[in-house]
Amino acid sequence: MMDDSQILLTPGPLTTSLRTKQAMLKDWGSWDADFNALTATVCRQLLDIIHGQDDYVVVPLQGSGTFSVEAAIATVVPRQGHLLVLDNGAYCKRMAKLATMMGRRVSVLTQPENRPVSPEQLEQTLMQDDSITHVGLIHCETGTGVVNPLQQVSDICQRLGRRLIVDAMSSFAALPIDCRELVFDALISASGKCLEGVPGMGFVFIRQAILESCRDNSYSLVLDLYDQHVYMTRTGQWRFTPPTHVVAALAEALVQFEQEGGQPARLERYTQNFQCLLSAMTQMGLSTYLKPEDLSPIIVTFNSPEDDRFDFKVFYNKVKAQGFILYPGKLTEVETFRVGCIGAISSVQMQKAVNAVGSALKEMGVLHG
Amino acid sequence: MMDDSQILLTPGPLTTSLRTKQAMLKDWGSWDADFNALTATVCRQLLDIIHGQDDYVVVPLQGSGTFSVEAAIATVVPRQGHLLVLDNGAYCKRMAKLATMMGRRVSVLTQPENRPVSPEQLEQTLMQDDSITHVGLIHCETGTGVVNPLQQVSDICQRLGRRLIVDAMSSFAALPIDCRELVFDALISASGKCLEGVPGMGFVFIRQAILESCRDNSYSLVLDLYDQHVYMTRTGQWRFTPPTHVVAALAEALVQFEQEGGQPARLERYTQNFQCLLSAMTQMGLSTYLKPEDLSPIIVTFNSPEDDRFDFKVFYNKVKAQGFILYPGKLTEVETFRVGCIGAISSVQMQKAVNAVGSALKEMGVLHG
Repeated sequence: MMDDSQILLTPGPLTTSLRTKQAMLKDWGSWDADFNALTATVCRQLLDIIHGQDDYVVVPLQGSGTFSVEAAIATVVPRQGHLLVLDNGAYCKRMAKLATMMGRRVSVLTQPENRPVSPEQLEQTLMQDDSITHVGLIHCETGTGVVNPLQQVSDICQRLGRRLIVDAMSSFAALPIDCRELVFDALISASGKCLEGVPGMGFVFIRQAILESCRDNSYSLVLDLYDQHVYMTRTGQWRFTPPTHVVAALAEALVQFEQEGGQPARLERYTQNFQCLLSAMTQMGLSTYLKPEDLSPIIVTFNSPEDDRFDFKVFYNKVKAQGFILYPGKLTEVETFRVGCIGAISSVQMQKAVNAVGSALKEMGVLHG
Repeated sequence: MMDDSQILLTPGPLTTSLRTKQAMLKDWGSWDADFNALTATVCRQLLDIIHGQDDYVVVPLQGSGTFSVEAAIATVVPRQGHLLVLDNGAYCKRMAKLATMMGRRVSVLTQPENRPVSPEQLEQTLMQDDSITHVGLIHCETGTGVVNPLQQVSDICQRLGRRLIVDAMSSFAALPIDCRELVFDALISASGKCLEGVPGMGFVFIRQAILESCRDNSYSLVLDLYDQHVYMTRTGQWRFTPPTHVVAALAEALVQFEQEGGQPARLERYTQNFQCLLSAMTQMGLSTYLKPEDLSPIIVTFNSPEDDRFDFKVFYNKVKAQGFILYPGKLTEVETFRVGCIGAISSVQMQKAVNAVGSALKEMGVLHG
């Protein structure tokens, strides 16, 4: 079996194993007991990852991760709720936008893009505004790669009696998330991120204690996770046609996740990729956008070389020609590009990738040596 | 390469060719030019099917078909609009429900489930209520398999100056839909139906003339097809992570669709499946829920045998053991089951399927012979 895929050094979709892709070579009846069992197994394994069997349910949803973010907010934030979004990047702004569009009251605590959000400023803001009922946090803001202080934010929300919604899209299954230490009303991720499945579905962990209060919150039928959960609990089936092949790929990816050793092993592999990337790029004279202490082993933002001969499109295509897909920057103020450390790759592929980066820069005359 | 899939005689997900599934053995970067080209090709081919290049755009959307139905209504029906849903089945009721949830004014013209909707009653209703701005029609209501009179409904809407939204989920690419003869504001289908792709995305044809008026109609970010279209036109990319493998499978399925001879050839093959199914089932003494003249070559609803020894679950499992997946009925008043004629199967597989049905009924003692 040939796998002619390029290596994706992106924040998702990312490189998946051949075994995961081969799980899509079968058609499943979405009403059939075999497929229901597959869905049930996936949900059980997802709950295991956060140790959430006692206090949480997990609700899968069709679509990209953002569909699940919008669904989570539509479902768990009451129509009269007031959401404070901690904003240090593009995905934070997206959360604020979708919550505003659906008619929820939204405030934004603007933070610098190049640093984790400040727990102190969150605490101050909450103390000054009793009307804020919910806090929205992006765990790893892939716009830059910065990791936000989830535990501290959870602690503050607990102490001040506010509800927490966590977009853990690109951190889940790589960074530790343990609901025996954290409290949140909803936490969101998707199939095509650090679980190394293919894109096409997301999932939302919802705290069991709030489930019943979520009925009738959603203005949207398809994004109503309460309804999705109730239907699935009753029938074992998805409410609307599931992306059967995507679900089968995720089931297979979860088997490999467990075989690898779960979240700690995955974090270790990604950290090796990250260290390989960082040391090689630094040697080439490239610098990171974030300070070293704020970097994450998920995705790294590099400053574009300050050299007129550097052009991202040319650079991208030269690296691509060697089999590696990079990712553009998402910052408006600074010229950057991004390299993901996640996906079904090891430091062997990462070493080849940085070699490709090196030779591309040399060809462009940007790197001398 | 082994394909151990069972044959799905369902309204979708349905049986896909091995070639279509093998197109998913590659990872794609969602930002990459190769993937953008794939999306552009798919969109061009979809527009070709309805001869819509001059007057329509097509907007793909992540999620199941229902996500695209909700998105179509959210995008093309203004917030002050008034939607009349022609209701002769479960999918009609779903359209009315999601439009109501999002806050649109909705009226329902209730029709018998076992007949096509009445153009005369539609005309009367529209004449009596000037406030109705939009009409929602399900082309083939897969709850029963009945085909509704699309051309006549379009003509009436044109004559009376009302806008038409067509859910063509299970008819598109099988029944003729030609926008040189029809006028609609939006028409919806999905990857995992008669195009014989895998499930995971839908698409909506929107009339170019109304596009600009759709800005700001949607209360939902992810379901906003105007925003999706504008972004895609500007960048060539999907707004949010696309289900890359599903898109690749659809691209491959579209190649096979054209090679087969397009919609007329597909309808012919499905009609052969349908005739094979109908004649064999009739010989076994099974009757259809609809009158012969209202049957469609998409999916056929059969009355369950009036015999105490018949139990759908047992019947289903006996047929499944022989490699064929049937579909339960969706009617509350009558005991029925459904058999789909669509998917990458020919009358050879259908003959084997009806043989399996026959032997299952015999084993249950329901069929004597």
